[in-house]
Amino acid sequence: MQTLNVALGERAYPIHIGRGLFGRADLILPHLKTQRVAIVTNTVVGPLYLERLRAGLEAAGVRTVAVVLPDGEAHKDWETLNRIFDMLLAERCERSTTLVALGGGVVGDMGGFAAACYQRGMPFIQVPTTLLSQVDSSVGGKTAINHPLGKNMIGAFYQPRLVLADIDTLDTLPDRELSAGLAEVIKYGLIRDPEFLAWLEANLDRLVARDTDALAWAIERSCRNKAEVVAADETEQGERALLNLGHTFGHAIETGLGYGEWLHGEAVAAGTMMAAELSRRLGWIDTAAVARIEALFERARLPVWGPRMGVERYVELMSHDKKVEAGKLRLVLLRALGRAVMHGEAPAGEIAAAIEARCR
Amino acid sequence: MQTLNVALGERAYPIHIGRGLFGRADLILPHLKTQRVAIVTNTVVGPLYLERLRAGLEAAGVRTVAVVLPDGEAHKDWETLNRIFDMLLAERCERSTTLVALGGGVVGDMGGFAAACYQRGMPFIQVPTTLLSQVDSSVGGKTAINHPLGKNMIGAFYQPRLVLADIDTLDTLPDRELSAGLAEVIKYGLIRDPEFLAWLEANLDRLVARDTDALAWAIERSCRNKAEVVAADETEQGERALLNLGHTFGHAIETGLGYGEWLHGEAVAAGTMMAAELSRRLGWIDTAAVARIEALFERARLPVWGPRMGVERYVELMSHDKKVEAGKLRLVLLRALGRAVMHGEAPAGEIAAAIEARCR
Repeated sequence: MQTLNVALGERAYPIHIGRGLFGRADLILPHLKTQRVAIVTNTVVGPLYLERLRAGLEAAGVRTVAVVLPDGEAHKDWETLNRIFDMLLAERCERSTTLVALGGGVVGDMGGFAAACYQRGMPFIQVPTTLLSQVDSSVGGKTAINHPLGKNMIGAFYQPRLVLADIDTLDTLPDRELSAGLAEVIKYGLIRDPEFLAWLEANLDRLVARDTDALAWAIERSCRNKAEVVAADETEQGERALLNLGHTFGHAIETGLGYGEWLHGEAVAAGTMMAAELSRRLGWIDTAAVARIEALFERARLPVWGPRMGVERYVELMSHDKKVEAGKLRLVLLRALGRAVMHGEAPAGEIAAAIEARCR
Repeated sequence: MQTLNVALGERAYPIHIGRGLFGRADLILPHLKTQRVAIVTNTVVGPLYLERLRAGLEAAGVRTVAVVLPDGEAHKDWETLNRIFDMLLAERCERSTTLVALGGGVVGDMGGFAAACYQRGMPFIQVPTTLLSQVDSSVGGKTAINHPLGKNMIGAFYQPRLVLADIDTLDTLPDRELSAGLAEVIKYGLIRDPEFLAWLEANLDRLVARDTDALAWAIERSCRNKAEVVAADETEQGERALLNLGHTFGHAIETGLGYGEWLHGEAVAAGTMMAAELSRRLGWIDTAAVARIEALFERARLPVWGPRMGVERYVELMSHDKKVEAGKLRLVLLRALGRAVMHGEAPAGEIAAAIEARCR
């Protein structure tokens, strides 16, 4: 087991990464406030892991209750969030009860937001079960639900007390979900870790083949990058926004097609190609660099072209982005492979041309 | 104009109290992040004050948008909250736009919670227009909506950047609302400020008669008490809970009768009488003290008896209280007039008897 620390002062917390962590209630117990836990999971993950997690906790004297939500981004809405509140109130959960999110990014985002809001804040633990949530969404305290007009528009910064990333859960992860997670792994290489990018170019096929050692290493390196960025800029006043490479384009794809059509990681891959194309048009990276990024995503079996929704629709959806400031769209672009920057001066014509060029 | 400070380190903020503050955009401008403001108000307050507030801001070069919500506690729910999000997104408000809540406690609670959640947090200003919100709910950063099973169950601690309490707004406040505000004013005297309690016993009739100087003094003294408590215990780990004297009983009344039947302050007055009666049964205060409290509330034209809902229903509703810990109900009681304590050991029989004795 590897342990990383997210250095956030009095809100600091550990990330444990390894095999067979689920049954180990001893890793969870030190982070509970009382011997009560409310578990939030979904219809896909629940049948696989809920009983194992509960059994370990109950054996250690912890009373548990659980709610099983419908699966998928299409359910990351108020209605589903309210099912968590209904359960917490019906079961008389207290503000000292700990909420444990057991699942992928959607479960973690909703469980975390519920924990942030229930009685104005209850303790929270992330148990991510997808590659995407293990390398990205479970770390750093971003929680949210979607609004019909924009993804992740309603939420909170709310840090967990512990992240427990059990690599065993990847054994049951569908190929498509594994690929989606690789989009965020590749992201870290592109935005700030050229050495990791080189390692990925050499080892991507091992990740796709689910080589345990390679996965463990990629998760650890990704979490290390994430933890560093979050510790430096918890509420996204600056550097943290760079983690959103490809996300402004990607969110437009997710919202435009309807939540759940494309997986988040798939939209991020196609969106990153748009950001790369725009960076090329600005003269920052060359055609060969764009091709290298494209090749990596293709080896990860990710889409490298966005859906044809019309450039105007893309731009309209992107105008709701959280990074818009004084009416100006700010985009994360690539100054070089391994170095992302925030840029608010890209001409509208170039943005449109980059989108157009990367739709098919 | 009087100015108090809520000492919360980097989240510190001023409370301005006085007449004619509305038109003074100069008081608001220093607290904006950008020249954009989204105003949340309701159908009662909007027609009276919205245009004056907007005109001042627009004249100072600030772009404003507004949403007018239905009035009353019955609308402090997700559906109404979502109308704020719809407006913010439709108007393309950014996370640097400042949300201004113009209204009473319900508008402030919902506006504040919307500001806490929109894009994970936008700047927020309180412009309270009722006595209750000026002396209590606008200060301290508690925001929330109600759930059918419990009042204020879903919310956030989210501090405003400024509280602007314009006493002129009390001129249009209905008598019933003025009385409801006095319940929270009297509360400060009862829980921690015996000198203020004595002043209230001498001057309550001036407050009911809307004597300007008396109101200004009572608001200032109340805000000073609130600011001290909040600065010492922002997230209610200890002392802050004492501000909830009468509220556990009162929330049961509000939830049990249906939100909006009784005003919050009315329920707090009747609830405080239950807390006083229980304190008497525990031997902490005598019959004469209970009578003094009752006399104060009666002079303020507040109810001193709870509605007959059945003791079991009260206890059931109170079991959802946020102060419940390890299944145990913790109540704010009076050790003496002017000194409240948190107590988790009151026998169930005595709690029931106190409720029974104060229902009519």
